[in-house]
Amino acid sequence: MLMRTTYSGLVTEALMGQAVTLCGWVNRRRDHGGVIFVDLRDREGYVQVVCDPDRAETFKTAEGLRNEFCVQVKGVVRARPPGTTNDHLKSGKIEVLAHELTVLNPSVTPPFQLDDENLSETTRLVHRVLDLRRPYMQNNLMLRYKVAMEVRKFLDANGFIDIETPMLTKSTPEGARDYLVPSRVHDGMFFALPQSPQLFKQLLMVAGYDRYYQITKCFRDEDLRADRQPEFTQIDVETSFMTEEEIREMFEGMIRSTFQNVLGIDIGAFPVMKHEDAMRLYGSDKPDLRVKLEFTEMTDVMKDVDFKVFSGPANSADGRVVALRVPGGGEMSRGEIDGYTEFVKIYGAKGLAWIKVNDAAAGREGLQSPIVKNLHDRAIAEIMKRTGAASGDLIFFGADKAKVVNDAMGALRVKVGHSEFGKSRGLIEGAWRPLWVIDFPMFEHDDEAQRWNAVHHPFTSPKDGHEDWLETDPGRCVAKAYDAVLNGIELGGGSVRIHREDVQSKVFRALKIDAEEAKLKFGFLLDALQYGAPPHGGIAIGLDRFVMLMAGAESLRDVIAFPKTQRAQCLLTQAPGPVDEKQLRELHIKLRNPQGA
Amino acid sequence: MLMRTTYSGLVTEALMGQAVTLCGWVNRRRDHGGVIFVDLRDREGYVQVVCDPDRAETFKTAEGLRNEFCVQVKGVVRARPPGTTNDHLKSGKIEVLAHELTVLNPSVTPPFQLDDENLSETTRLVHRVLDLRRPYMQNNLMLRYKVAMEVRKFLDANGFIDIETPMLTKSTPEGARDYLVPSRVHDGMFFALPQSPQLFKQLLMVAGYDRYYQITKCFRDEDLRADRQPEFTQIDVETSFMTEEEIREMFEGMIRSTFQNVLGIDIGAFPVMKHEDAMRLYGSDKPDLRVKLEFTEMTDVMKDVDFKVFSGPANSADGRVVALRVPGGGEMSRGEIDGYTEFVKIYGAKGLAWIKVNDAAAGREGLQSPIVKNLHDRAIAEIMKRTGAASGDLIFFGADKAKVVNDAMGALRVKVGHSEFGKSRGLIEGAWRPLWVIDFPMFEHDDEAQRWNAVHHPFTSPKDGHEDWLETDPGRCVAKAYDAVLNGIELGGGSVRIHREDVQSKVFRALKIDAEEAKLKFGFLLDALQYGAPPHGGIAIGLDRFVMLMAGAESLRDVIAFPKTQRAQCLLTQAPGPVDEKQLRELHIKLRNPQGA
Repeated sequence: MLMRTTYSGLVTEALMGQAVTLCGWVNRRRDHGGVIFVDLRDREGYVQVVCDPDRAETFKTAEGLRNEFCVQVKGVVRARPPGTTNDHLKSGKIEVLAHELTVLNPSVTPPFQLDDENLSETTRLVHRVLDLRRPYMQNNLMLRYKVAMEVRKFLDANGFIDIETPMLTKSTPEGARDYLVPSRVHDGMFFALPQSPQLFKQLLMVAGYDRYYQITKCFRDEDLRADRQPEFTQIDVETSFMTEEEIREMFEGMIRSTFQNVLGIDIGAFPVMKHEDAMRLYGSDKPDLRVKLEFTEMTDVMKDVDFKVFSGPANSADGRVVALRVPGGGEMSRGEIDGYTEFVKIYGAKGLAWIKVNDAAAGREGLQSPIVKNLHDRAIAEIMKRTGAASGDLIFFGADKAKVVNDAMGALRVKVGHSEFGKSRGLIEGAWRPLWVIDFPMFEHDDEAQRWNAVHHPFTSPKDGHEDWLETDPGRCVAKAYDAVLNGIELGGGSVRIHREDVQSKVFRALKIDAEEAKLKFGFLLDALQYGAPPHGGIAIGLDRFVMLMAGAESLRDVIAFPKTQRAQCLLTQAPGPVDEKQLRELHIKLRNPQGA
Repeated sequence: MLMRTTYSGLVTEALMGQAVTLCGWVNRRRDHGGVIFVDLRDREGYVQVVCDPDRAETFKTAEGLRNEFCVQVKGVVRARPPGTTNDHLKSGKIEVLAHELTVLNPSVTPPFQLDDENLSETTRLVHRVLDLRRPYMQNNLMLRYKVAMEVRKFLDANGFIDIETPMLTKSTPEGARDYLVPSRVHDGMFFALPQSPQLFKQLLMVAGYDRYYQITKCFRDEDLRADRQPEFTQIDVETSFMTEEEIREMFEGMIRSTFQNVLGIDIGAFPVMKHEDAMRLYGSDKPDLRVKLEFTEMTDVMKDVDFKVFSGPANSADGRVVALRVPGGGEMSRGEIDGYTEFVKIYGAKGLAWIKVNDAAAGREGLQSPIVKNLHDRAIAEIMKRTGAASGDLIFFGADKAKVVNDAMGALRVKVGHSEFGKSRGLIEGAWRPLWVIDFPMFEHDDEAQRWNAVHHPFTSPKDGHEDWLETDPGRCVAKAYDAVLNGIELGGGSVRIHREDVQSKVFRALKIDAEEAKLKFGFLLDALQYGAPPHGGIAIGLDRFVMLMAGAESLRDVIAFPKTQRAQCLLTQAPGPVDEKQLRELHIKLRNPQGA
């Protein structure tokens, strides 16, 4: 005897006249005209159950039902009376006349209504089990499953093999803080939870597994922002014997087919943009291409203006001056412009210069701006010519260290595009806009520490022919690295890896990792590369963010069943928690502040 | 231009006459009759590449090839000359005439030959990358992938959803030692790595996800035996609204279809055996049904014999006396029997009594045994009658505390069955013999601590009607628990869970977990159960062991890419390792023995 013959949400007119047994939760009970209606809810949706007084026992049970009672209903499917059908439900044309009704488990009154849209995040996380009952969360987690399964099917069809790599491992060099696990067997020693399976997947390539994948947890003990979690899930892939272009093509296919098969959306081919072009045009290595605004380079023009705010950066080796033309922006109020001025300060900008083009044909006289008086005619002419500004436009300016200009004006570009103004003016397209950003520099210079740091990670291959510059001119080296970007969010990134031991050693030297340290930390990699390591490369895609984007969710926490707060706590289970002294003793550690704990 | 057009191992006569580009490793180079033959190896197998002197450059490159060089070959597929084909290879009818040969990466001489079958485990784990190149390991990991993928497909087809549960969580009560992770944000607090997702999957059922699965890492910091790893992989499943029988049927289907689809073997329907019958007949809750030997109960018979070795246990409340008849065992030498006597001592037995039946019709006179003189005629007659011993048989006896008898005689039964003698006498069947063991007791008594412990875990449901005994007679409670056993190995186990808060609280009380402790440790579960928790249950199957069994491997380490040693170390990466003082300070901990580390 089956406890259930089908899901409540799947009862349709196809079952008309048939007996069904359903299990689920009371979403709502209504008493109407001497009859009790119960909206029965399960994973797949709702069905209306009717209990009439003819069946006294069933009716009595129905009278006792409250929201979130778990019940079993045996009954018969029948058409709803004319005029009472509901087109929004799969089961909207039918109802189930209850013959038997059993309370499987009652419920105390929930702390909130499941359809309350204004719950605080704390309430939701403390009562996560009830929060997870809400169709919003169920849809998100179902979507997450579908995405993961589509990815698996795609990779399986392309010969990729899921191989598990260790969770208890050695500190890896991704640069973030490790979560550590004290060893009981080895006094004073620690495992680290993986920041990524990077080295293991490279070793699997050296071992000849050819195509590897894993959908796996990674860990970073960083201060959390809204879009970070201490543990996150990565679609981690690596392949041998494919060029950079082939790899990109493969994983573009994976992302596109996932969108296609899960959401029925073709997000289109990914344009390929060089890193330097992305920075030049958008000040960002993950430009939101939905926003139809671009930077105009002004650095060269501003070298000899009197206006120090512009000429200073223009004449500095690491300075930059750009214009951002906003078509129709002349309509912006002074208050809006002041708001943007405050906004760019978040990114370190000292202010926000602007010109309103009242009459493009009228030269200097047609411009309204606090700064025009400081600019010579040639500069003004160049501004108008290069930006192509027309009457009614607004031009913003950023002038500072290049990094500040890129960050501030890049963020401003997105902010304006996504504003009500931007939407009303068609400065943003509603569609999905993916791209590849490629040709990242190998290194970025840390001026304070006077050293080069890896932009991706130290296992990224330089472009062919750039190997010699590793020693002579690291700043010139371009990497075989690529990021997949969608609507301004980095879905993931990857690279062709170094497969030659001599090149790897050179990169370590460029990063001031000396031979001894390299051997200690990465000896097993250098060793492996000596045994005929194949050319290989791969990518890692953040599953949480991928799903968040597809779900249109605001927070990573809305696509993770049991997430942590920004203080890295689980409000449901109260993890982390205190432990016994005995456990600490076994692990050969003690607390620094036993009182404080 | 593709780096490779197909796998070496997949080149067959279907490609005859066609140009191919292959990438792989030099498995062997032979110079024969002025021509160089290279066995090129990749994940899919081998192909023979021929380099002839006509192409001088290619030939010169070929002369430089050594084992494990990584190379690219462009050439044409042609038939092997008659008499040189190899039926053991997919590519055995053809060879590839090399037109171009490129060394992608040379190799230093490997520390061992890849086909060396006598490598020590230490050598294999230190040089794991090369060990993983061996077809044995590649086949095992490929099999592992296929098993995991089949399981996913089965579960997907049955409406199960993969939902990730946290890795950084709270200490769980599976009873083993936790791996702890100190919190940086919360001074003195610790996360625990999960011993299983037990509580989270139950919460997901309460949250209405209906059918959940995960193939996930679990962690136990126990002293390691040959078949344990600190981190292991569990196929973890849970479902709502299914009876115990439905759940078993579902997962029996999963295991059978996995065998069918991966190995092409139907392991047959699982007989269902009660725990008490398994203990009675085999002294084990995971009997190897391939072995055709059974216990014969003798406790009642031996109560009044003079022989204290038998009458002592027979009259003790926790004692047991059993016979194990070995058909044809009369041929065993005294040396063999002495060997078994030593063997049972491992399990705590003090000795091993035996009777050789020389002539079953001759009564006492027909028996050869050191113990017969101590047994009265009725006892001897019962032995012969109950065991059905025939001339030429041997009967072993175990008499001790029931636990010792079960352990020792259960192990002896398996040992004799698997011996050369057992095989030659047909005492073991070569086939796969699965079964379900069900109706486990809820609790076992810890005589020392004077308390009851859960046999499975404290969330296991008692049988309907046994709830009241939780308080009055815990030893009488039978659990809705079931283990899947295959060839004497526990593949996994599960149960119907408690879905009512009052029953769960009773179980906690039976386990002497008082209300305060229950609230502290499991408050979030007790809380969740109040909101209409559905009837639910599930199972967890050890993937590592499942694959080991299917692969016929001797060790879990042969089905895990990067395993730990029995000392919980990774010999490849040298994890665990020392960490900086700064890291410890950030985590608010210090070493107890800074010198020792």
